[in-house]
Amino acid sequence: MKAAESPQKGRGSTAAGASMRALRFDGTSPKLVKSQPRPEPADGEALIRTSCAAVSGIEVELCRGLLDFQGTLGHEFVGIVESVNGDEYPQLVGKRVVGSVAAVCGRCDMCQTGLRNHCRQRTVLGIIGRDGCLADWLVLPAANLQLVPDSVDDDHAVFVDLLACAIQSARQLTIEGKPYITVLGDGPLGLLMVQVMSKLNASVRLIGRYSEKLAVCEKWGVKHRHIDDIGRRADQDIVVDCTGSPTGIEVAMQLVRPRGTILVKSMYANRDDRVAAIDYAPIVMKEITLIGSRSGPIREALSTIDSGAVDVVSLIGKRMTLDDGPVILQTAAQPGMLKVLVDV
Amino acid sequence: MKAAESPQKGRGSTAAGASMRALRFDGTSPKLVKSQPRPEPADGEALIRTSCAAVSGIEVELCRGLLDFQGTLGHEFVGIVESVNGDEYPQLVGKRVVGSVAAVCGRCDMCQTGLRNHCRQRTVLGIIGRDGCLADWLVLPAANLQLVPDSVDDDHAVFVDLLACAIQSARQLTIEGKPYITVLGDGPLGLLMVQVMSKLNASVRLIGRYSEKLAVCEKWGVKHRHIDDIGRRADQDIVVDCTGSPTGIEVAMQLVRPRGTILVKSMYANRDDRVAAIDYAPIVMKEITLIGSRSGPIREALSTIDSGAVDVVSLIGKRMTLDDGPVILQTAAQPGMLKVLVDV
Repeated sequence: MKAAESPQKGRGSTAAGASMRALRFDGTSPKLVKSQPRPEPADGEALIRTSCAAVSGIEVELCRGLLDFQGTLGHEFVGIVESVNGDEYPQLVGKRVVGSVAAVCGRCDMCQTGLRNHCRQRTVLGIIGRDGCLADWLVLPAANLQLVPDSVDDDHAVFVDLLACAIQSARQLTIEGKPYITVLGDGPLGLLMVQVMSKLNASVRLIGRYSEKLAVCEKWGVKHRHIDDIGRRADQDIVVDCTGSPTGIEVAMQLVRPRGTILVKSMYANRDDRVAAIDYAPIVMKEITLIGSRSGPIREALSTIDSGAVDVVSLIGKRMTLDDGPVILQTAAQPGMLKVLVDV
Repeated sequence: MKAAESPQKGRGSTAAGASMRALRFDGTSPKLVKSQPRPEPADGEALIRTSCAAVSGIEVELCRGLLDFQGTLGHEFVGIVESVNGDEYPQLVGKRVVGSVAAVCGRCDMCQTGLRNHCRQRTVLGIIGRDGCLADWLVLPAANLQLVPDSVDDDHAVFVDLLACAIQSARQLTIEGKPYITVLGDGPLGLLMVQVMSKLNASVRLIGRYSEKLAVCEKWGVKHRHIDDIGRRADQDIVVDCTGSPTGIEVAMQLVRPRGTILVKSMYANRDDRVAAIDYAPIVMKEITLIGSRSGPIREALSTIDSGAVDVVSLIGKRMTLDDGPVILQTAAQPGMLKVLVDV
């Protein structure tokens, strides 16, 4: 449902000092807080009324201790700009937006050398030092926002951050001689990744665990195999690890050919039982290149969604509401779960 | 001392079926075997009388279980060709040689696609499925051998494999805009690496632990710092891990800038206490590229040594003889030890 059609459900007053609902992690467990102070936009920031949010593996991992995050969870959203603190972006007010999630200083060595995404003072929505979007309201720099065209509804627009990641991964690869590419993992990112990679001049397959997800690949005409049905011949030119699991990199090292490339998307909280088995020797023995990949271009992702070039609707696993509270995260953590969307 | 000047010390007869001394690892501990059968060269292989060998970290790690190797240790050698099985390389007989250590099939998909070093059927001298050079005699394909010019003595020539590794690492890097390069580790490989990297258009420094090794850098005019004296600012464009230790990659991840490159040379036997602390998240968060690097071009390394462009004599830590047996490996494993040369 589009946010423009959404009634204001128990948001409290829009006046300064008002409170709101927020799904927060306090370092121990996630909790639905019903009287969280509404965030105040700093200079240049927009106050945004959240209409739709989504939950990724990273929120699950943050609640397991990744990055020592505490605060309001959530980094995937669609919302409507309530106000902008400053004169620069009056055209945003009242408009439906998505946004890139990193707020940067613009002055450090990273910002000055074209690496704004890696700003040394950055905060990241719901991930590093900034409250996220699983709440009635959020704030982000107005410069981060992109207007969502009327032709893209909330259910599609909320995938923009995840699709941007897949686009970024494709950009980081060198595609020569129609390479064999294996995408490991049939979660929402893997299923987007395989759609993006399939448009390259490459032979692409997805390796997954869940028959209903492999059936989605079948529908798309994308090659797919169950993880238990593949050999470990070390003949893939490129392996993209979207498993979100420590075993992903191990399998990737087995599948990739000597001098091949592994693109690493998985990030997870380290616990002793999750890292002990990893063997570094193949990186040297096989002269593998590992490339870490993070966030990507929001604007390009939005226009890709608008063009209909990728299917995101098939990636929706469950619809919930913010009032479902911590159950949202338990649901997202279920094995085989696709994308959990949250109406706010 | 040049092998040509070396008397035959207790090598036994050169007749087929004769025995020899060999420093072997049996899966439990290294032992000096005094009646090891002399190896027989297969078709196309040369029988080589070892004159000088050297010991690297990899021999120490093989004795800790790396790669499940069993057999005669050693992969760095200079020797004199006794005979060649076949008609192709008569010019080698009686000559002093070094050799690339991987014996390949020439027929598999790797060999046919320019990746002979990664041949699926390969054996590697003293590392994978082939007895090594810490013995009176060794065999290698004659095609692997390079004649050593008279101007290069054994003490220099025995560094050819290690220098080839450093040259290969430099080739795998993209050098743009005078990058900052940190070489981690002041072992023989690190000290060769920093010499090779210093010839690139880059700002290079070595980070080490031992004052006598850092003094060698001082002599060369190479920037150097003690590991305890550096900040962890994440501002290095390239970090080369030559520590041979699991902590190397962790420090490298701290030092490298976002979107920077870590070149991985370290390989070690995995034991639980050596891998548990490694955190993968920075690879993704900082979008780091890791490049595994292995062996390099022997011929180019030999001509680099001949040109005097690198100082290898300063890398000699101790001279031993094959009769020293397992003590050779204990000596090579001492913290801070430079290269151990072994007269055979």
